[in-house]
Amino acid sequence: MAKIDSVSPLAPASFPQLVPVDGVRFATAAAGVKYKDRTDVMLALLDPGSVVAGVFTRSSTRAAPVLDCQAKIGVPSDAGAAILVNSGNANAFTGARGTDSVEAITLAVAQAAGVPQERVFTSSTGVIGEPLPHDRITDVLSTLTSNADVNGVAAAAKAIMTTDTFAKGAQAQVDVAGKPVRIVGIAKGSGMIAPDMATMLVYLFTDARIEQTGLQALVSGINERSFNCITVDSDTSTSDTLLAAATGASGVSVDGDRGFAEALEGVMLDLAHQVVRDGEGATKFVEIAVSGAASDAEAKIHAMAIANSPLIKTAIAGEDPNWGRVVMAVGKSGAKADRDRLSIRFGDVEVAKDGWRSESYSEEAAAAHMKQDHISIGVDIGIGTGQATVWTCDLTHGYISINADYRS
Amino acid sequence: MAKIDSVSPLAPASFPQLVPVDGVRFATAAAGVKYKDRTDVMLALLDPGSVVAGVFTRSSTRAAPVLDCQAKIGVPSDAGAAILVNSGNANAFTGARGTDSVEAITLAVAQAAGVPQERVFTSSTGVIGEPLPHDRITDVLSTLTSNADVNGVAAAAKAIMTTDTFAKGAQAQVDVAGKPVRIVGIAKGSGMIAPDMATMLVYLFTDARIEQTGLQALVSGINERSFNCITVDSDTSTSDTLLAAATGASGVSVDGDRGFAEALEGVMLDLAHQVVRDGEGATKFVEIAVSGAASDAEAKIHAMAIANSPLIKTAIAGEDPNWGRVVMAVGKSGAKADRDRLSIRFGDVEVAKDGWRSESYSEEAAAAHMKQDHISIGVDIGIGTGQATVWTCDLTHGYISINADYRS
Repeated sequence: MAKIDSVSPLAPASFPQLVPVDGVRFATAAAGVKYKDRTDVMLALLDPGSVVAGVFTRSSTRAAPVLDCQAKIGVPSDAGAAILVNSGNANAFTGARGTDSVEAITLAVAQAAGVPQERVFTSSTGVIGEPLPHDRITDVLSTLTSNADVNGVAAAAKAIMTTDTFAKGAQAQVDVAGKPVRIVGIAKGSGMIAPDMATMLVYLFTDARIEQTGLQALVSGINERSFNCITVDSDTSTSDTLLAAATGASGVSVDGDRGFAEALEGVMLDLAHQVVRDGEGATKFVEIAVSGAASDAEAKIHAMAIANSPLIKTAIAGEDPNWGRVVMAVGKSGAKADRDRLSIRFGDVEVAKDGWRSESYSEEAAAAHMKQDHISIGVDIGIGTGQATVWTCDLTHGYISINADYRS
Repeated sequence: MAKIDSVSPLAPASFPQLVPVDGVRFATAAAGVKYKDRTDVMLALLDPGSVVAGVFTRSSTRAAPVLDCQAKIGVPSDAGAAILVNSGNANAFTGARGTDSVEAITLAVAQAAGVPQERVFTSSTGVIGEPLPHDRITDVLSTLTSNADVNGVAAAAKAIMTTDTFAKGAQAQVDVAGKPVRIVGIAKGSGMIAPDMATMLVYLFTDARIEQTGLQALVSGINERSFNCITVDSDTSTSDTLLAAATGASGVSVDGDRGFAEALEGVMLDLAHQVVRDGEGATKFVEIAVSGAASDAEAKIHAMAIANSPLIKTAIAGEDPNWGRVVMAVGKSGAKADRDRLSIRFGDVEVAKDGWRSESYSEEAAAAHMKQDHISIGVDIGIGTGQATVWTCDLTHGYISINADYRS
């Protein structure tokens, strides 16, 4: 069966050399929550004055740590803060016992780190429905707090992995009013598809100074164009969490600064694409750009219908320029379309125009594009100005192998 | 690669011995539309006085024959009628040329069969985006009309197949006011998943006497509980068509008769299940029953989220009682749920109750149920009285093999 040990063919050549972000320190430990012989807990300690923003899954069965984070985001405080993440167990669908575990962990972190409990944010990722052995986590807290170091972010990216085949990191530096501001991010997961809802988690750190409400607005907005525009298999985790922390240590205020917003978007998009590149069984990275829809929201509905279609994803796996399936997906999406105005491109190859196969269509040229490992599908609905771009991967035998027997 | 030549392991033991229905005659021919050495056109001739009802795909990119049928359904006429179906080419996304083909075929059928053109209904199923060589069909019309026979329905079920691994037929006889009425149905397809949108097609014939509006109301209503409750992979065809014809030849009026409605529902459900049993790559037939939802409509949203989840379908393929994925699907569905009231059953095994793994849960008992080829998943949302049942199949390597390279 099941677990794939080789690194995704779409992985970046190497993990980036991430620069330290002033005001945040990291530590990791091997607590044995489930995995043996690897780190499975990471702690990030944020200096006093840091603000924290977050975006979370909308699942109605979301996990206890998600509910706890949601309650704490935006509560004003000048104290320090902490983010603790464990892999191996999602503490999801664990009833009152799950809430107790979150309480025990956040209390212990607060004491060990000397921060208020309402400033301790946790995430858990891994198997669902099993009680979290939270003692194993609280047992390593003193080690974590004493080892915390500004250079620990790469180790943190590794500690939060579950079935990821590579650690995911990205960064940016931007000058605001002539002074440098840094943004560093790490992520784990394969979109919504990681087995047993081992989930998508994202942590962003910047030394920028920014109001919490401003940071929240920024990450919520960019999240719609980055993480909410990726899909591996349409299945949504019970634990998806993004936390963004601004320590203010650079002394540079970025409220309303466009350069900072663009740099942050670059980091988030980079991480979102890395999650797709680690999609289970993925062999192709697929960009789907829809234009000419009735609105941006309708364009995204079309794009997601294409990105989630098993028939399209299997055709891409087979390197088959099967544009008829794109017509099908647009038709079923529920968003407005006019069959006779639809145009489709695979890469630079115009496949269909105004509701039929293009006069200039070359099956050979389209097939050549499908052989690449970066596939781009362009669809013009032809009825308006709405547009959206989403990213996904193909659906392969690897996906079946990984998911048909993960728990056993 | 691609085409699977062996019959689905979930196929019925044999095609049923279908009784003739008075007032309808069938003929088939090998027109060479695309396939060689097999029949690919079927004609059903309906006696004067027949009424025809229909249900069609809601795809916004639906094919020319579908649009033509929709325009003709319900137009009153005492004349005879005809249904002509070809396999091998869907005449979908073929622009004005597609409309011309429908016009040419319906005109020729009208002349050959001596019925008005607005009483000729056609369906086309197979490859999308290729012009339909309609001359090959009109060339065999005189053969078809002269061979038409009341006993031809089994041959008709075969002629409409594309990648189906078995022909699908069902029937019922019901006494109304002490007199027998017959219902016979045939179908093709593997739900919404057949490659290149080779589609789901269903034809029902009865000798009952019934108003067209009454027949339409019956099939529209039952369709919601039968064909609209199956899914193989969430992909919706551009050509899905169901036509129901009542010849009235029995002389028995069934308007408002409950026994007739139940018999019709039995035939439609039987055919719907057969379509799932021929789902591409299917090795398990899966029934998903949701209760306790806020409404019946919300129950169906939950049930379809479960039925379409790739993670659940692959777990079933792997015979893994992975109930955490059911929690995930309920959570993402968008319909109302309360995590802490959710209960889940696999077969007779209570897996989860009130938001956590059941006290009595036995992994061995659940795993034993998953080894069967008929899997039943029961979910109680615990917040209302809404219920729905849907049917699907598992997602296997066979599905990937069939769909990753169908056109090539």
